[in-house]
Amino acid sequence: MRLITFTSAESAAPRVGALVDGGDAAVDLSAAGVADTLEDLIAGGQESLAAARDAIDSGASRRPASDITLHAPLSHPPKNVMCVGKNYHAHAQEFHSSGFDASSGKDAAALPEHPVVFTKAHTSIVGPGVPIDTGLDPTRSTDYEGELAVVIGRGGRGIRQADCWSHVFGYTIVNDVTARITQQTHRQWFLGKSIDTFCPMGPTLVTAEEVPDVRELTLTTTVNGEPRQQARVADLVFDIPTLIEVISRSIRLEPGDIIATGTPAGVGIGFQPPRYLRPGDSVAITIEPIGTLENPVT
Amino acid sequence: MRLITFTSAESAAPRVGALVDGGDAAVDLSAAGVADTLEDLIAGGQESLAAARDAIDSGASRRPASDITLHAPLSHPPKNVMCVGKNYHAHAQEFHSSGFDASSGKDAAALPEHPVVFTKAHTSIVGPGVPIDTGLDPTRSTDYEGELAVVIGRGGRGIRQADCWSHVFGYTIVNDVTARITQQTHRQWFLGKSIDTFCPMGPTLVTAEEVPDVRELTLTTTVNGEPRQQARVADLVFDIPTLIEVISRSIRLEPGDIIATGTPAGVGIGFQPPRYLRPGDSVAITIEPIGTLENPVT
Repeated sequence: MRLITFTSAESAAPRVGALVDGGDAAVDLSAAGVADTLEDLIAGGQESLAAARDAIDSGASRRPASDITLHAPLSHPPKNVMCVGKNYHAHAQEFHSSGFDASSGKDAAALPEHPVVFTKAHTSIVGPGVPIDTGLDPTRSTDYEGELAVVIGRGGRGIRQADCWSHVFGYTIVNDVTARITQQTHRQWFLGKSIDTFCPMGPTLVTAEEVPDVRELTLTTTVNGEPRQQARVADLVFDIPTLIEVISRSIRLEPGDIIATGTPAGVGIGFQPPRYLRPGDSVAITIEPIGTLENPVT
Repeated sequence: MRLITFTSAESAAPRVGALVDGGDAAVDLSAAGVADTLEDLIAGGQESLAAARDAIDSGASRRPASDITLHAPLSHPPKNVMCVGKNYHAHAQEFHSSGFDASSGKDAAALPEHPVVFTKAHTSIVGPGVPIDTGLDPTRSTDYEGELAVVIGRGGRGIRQADCWSHVFGYTIVNDVTARITQQTHRQWFLGKSIDTFCPMGPTLVTAEEVPDVRELTLTTTVNGEPRQQARVADLVFDIPTLIEVISRSIRLEPGDIIATGTPAGVGIGFQPPRYLRPGDSVAITIEPIGTLENPVT
């Protein structure tokens, strides 16, 4: 299922739904009584998933996708969005060489020996089409980072790699937008990563059974149509089982928790001079079958 | 007011209350209809505060404090708990000299030029008396950090220093417990700071009007009764108005958001060799009029 959070002319309050017919139509799962929010659907586990499938199969509560507005699938996960830094080989090298990585010493290796995890506040989350506001970055060094994000279904602590897939509800896209100079000067990355509008998410939350092998997914990012990032999830330094095992070793994961797995090479500071986002730009990140997350820049 | 979250023999569900009579008695503000949770009371603003005062003045719903169990005042703030690193001069030097600060290069100055902000997940929050579980720290390098925490009342973005006090709801104590080796090896501090039980909080949430000048408050930390930390809030490198201005410059603060302002010198890694917490220890942090936050270590 390609689950969504949406509004429409009749309902200003966000509802949960599913895209069907190749994205041309949407099923209103809230109208069908499945769940009021995607957070509730995830918390409902297998029972809610089965109800969602039944609602889709029934053919009821169906409408043209052109009638609805998509929002971020999850706007307030239980924890801040957890993000992994320097988790593709070529990007780790590019970030290291840029001089913007104040979190490791000059002599440190480009590639981390352990996963580097930081967070983005939920207040930074916006949906597809919502502008990334560079006016909120006082350092005017706004950069994009296309990422695959894992959404946790069943919670738990001490999850082993072998068991991790039973805790994955599905996948979405996150643009881990970053104020590079803030990220650098404040050492810890939270302030440079959590700026309002700096966490575009969506367009859909694809359930795990739609993705037989997540490593085969390909991520591409364009800015104004120009290709910037392209990578396979198989190229992650620390793969999804490792990330879930390391994070959950000491931290209880909850249904709806989000782990953004890291960005590949091709971000703005990978260029000389850096190519920061500017008002009028448009960033589009595509991972099928999730879709394309496109956001204008203001 | 010294607000609390508590349970009792009659109510396993947490309720909101206030300590009165020098801490000997508690008023059940949920029974008085003021609010179901402290989160709701904060969100209710001046109206809820006035209702709480009325309930206390009425003398109703009063009981001996010995009948109740205190919990963390806030167990699920809107965002992860925001924490400030290296924010007392002597501690910045001690942390720098310890070799555990992987977030700045070897040649970096001990004192940060800009506030260093990271977060702790809500799943790490526990109340007074709940054990800090060193078994969840695989690196066995668990350290204490006594801190004054600011609780936001009225939310907002772009809050100027001059206006900041009107956004402060009150104050509590946070023990920013840290797995030092995890903090060091993962570069970003989230994983080493967010371990379950590693964010003791409480015992009360004192409203701002009880604290005429927060800079005059004194923090003391003891381990097994032995003095370890003592400092005045006036010694903060970045004071509370600066922290609120810097964080809210680009991030929308919300009612109930928590900012732990940093720890003074005297943590375990300030000793040679480091004096980590061990099962059987007890850590007590006192800031009057908030009280003493004491937690055993297992």
